[in-house]
Amino acid sequence: MSRDERFTKEAADLGYSFDGEIKIGGNYVPLIRDGNHIYVSGQIPRVDNTVVVTGPAGTEVPLAQAQVAAKVCAMRALALLKRSLGSLERVKAVPRISVYVQSAQAFTQQSEVVDGASEILFNVLGPAGAHTRTSVGVFQLPKNATVEVDLIATVE
Amino acid sequence: MSRDERFTKEAADLGYSFDGEIKIGGNYVPLIRDGNHIYVSGQIPRVDNTVVVTGPAGTEVPLAQAQVAAKVCAMRALALLKRSLGSLERVKAVPRISVYVQSAQAFTQQSEVVDGASEILFNVLGPAGAHTRTSVGVFQLPKNATVEVDLIATVE
Amino acid sequence: MSRDERFTKEAADLGYSFDGEIKIGGNYVPLIRDGNHIYVSGQIPRVDNTVVVTGPAGTEVPLAQAQVAAKVCAMRALALLKRSLGSLERVKAVPRISVYVQSAQAFTQQSEVVDGASEILFNVLGPAGAHTRTSVGVFQLPKNATVEVDLIATVE
Repeated sequence: MSRDERFTKEAADLGYSFDGEIKIGGNYVPLIRDGNHIYVSGQIPRVDNTVVVTGPAGTEVPLAQAQVAAKVCAMRALALLKRSLGSLERVKAVPRISVYVQSAQAFTQQSEVVDGASEILFNVLGPAGAHTRTSVGVFQLPKNATVEVDLIATVE
Repeated sequence: MSRDERFTKEAADLGYSFDGEIKIGGNYVPLIRDGNHIYVSGQIPRVDNTVVVTGPAGTEVPLAQAQVAAKVCAMRALALLKRSLGSLERVKAVPRISVYVQSAQAFTQQSEVVDGASEILFNVLGPAGAHTRTSVGVFQLPKNATVEVDLIATVE
Repeated sequence: MSRDERFTKEAADLGYSFDGEIKIGGNYVPLIRDGNHIYVSGQIPRVDNTVVVTGPAGTEVPLAQAQVAAKVCAMRALALLKRSLGSLERVKAVPRISVYVQSAQAFTQQSEVVDGASEILFNVLGPAGAHTRTSVGVFQLPKNATVEVDLIATVE
């Protein structure tokens, strides 16, 4: 399967479509090409007009659901790259992802949540999806989202 | 108007001067040139010796005031770039800003706060001020600041 | 003293060894070379299998201990660079470090905590250790760590 086919398969597995407009929440742009790099803005788990997972991980949101949120964020980032590049085959590497997890006070499984985003990158991009990452637990996120993911991709 | 003139106008609109020393809070440097990029350290809304907006957005600090904080942070970042480059005309792009908003638990308008910083970049730099951004709600910031902004700029 | 010797000295001063495996907490890689840059994943103060400083700064963790946590994170990042490059002499610059401090609500000395990480970079790398930084206070971190540090290094 090509990367674009694997992307479509992951979307089907999640039960969401990423073909609609990728809305952003303010006065900025979703991605910027900078030489061989593309910076993607922080993505929350929004599908069309709905943030599909909201609230703090560990109390309102169980681990499995927070991982789904992380996956949706990563899929949105890939959807933006796919649209901008024509195909995900043009992604060479993902040197950095930063992931913010809205967390209940006693919740310390941020790494496990973020594995959801990492899994999407590996599943869709293969070895080119290897990435460094930083996972932190934050107090709130825009629109009460459970997870936010930004990334930097390298392209040819 | 040139960018530097627009910078001066924004400072006048805010009622603050950014001509003084841009103090930093520790053992590091305010900005680093790295090839065609300049990394600017996280800026809090400090003017001279005073952090002009402190406390969590949503309770102690209303939205409009938090937006002012975001504007002051962005102006400080631009002031550092201006000083280092001689003129803001040399900024080619701003691929990334990351913005941290000290937030009350129920406050979810981080994007609206951060629009203050985005507005400054667009108003001063024009199209070169287009940027990707990540907005998160954090529990505390240095010196009880309401907002912190860091960025990466591209120069010729 | 060479940088590698200074690294060994700092490790001895801290009383920890960084010769063991640098474990990471999930499905990603500890560092990625991207052209002349190396991105290092977020490091918590883990030595072998133990996170040596846990809990929020300001209540459970006093400032001095949080600074130790920041130093251990920075040493781990340097240990990864040393292992990857053969020698820390090959590091040319450190354009960015981002530091997340698990913070009690009233704790606003994030900059002072992060000075621990900055001190390690200056002590080991000398002038090449000059860096921009962003310090924020977060609600939780993976495995209840007190501090997390990520960085970007430039190499020849």
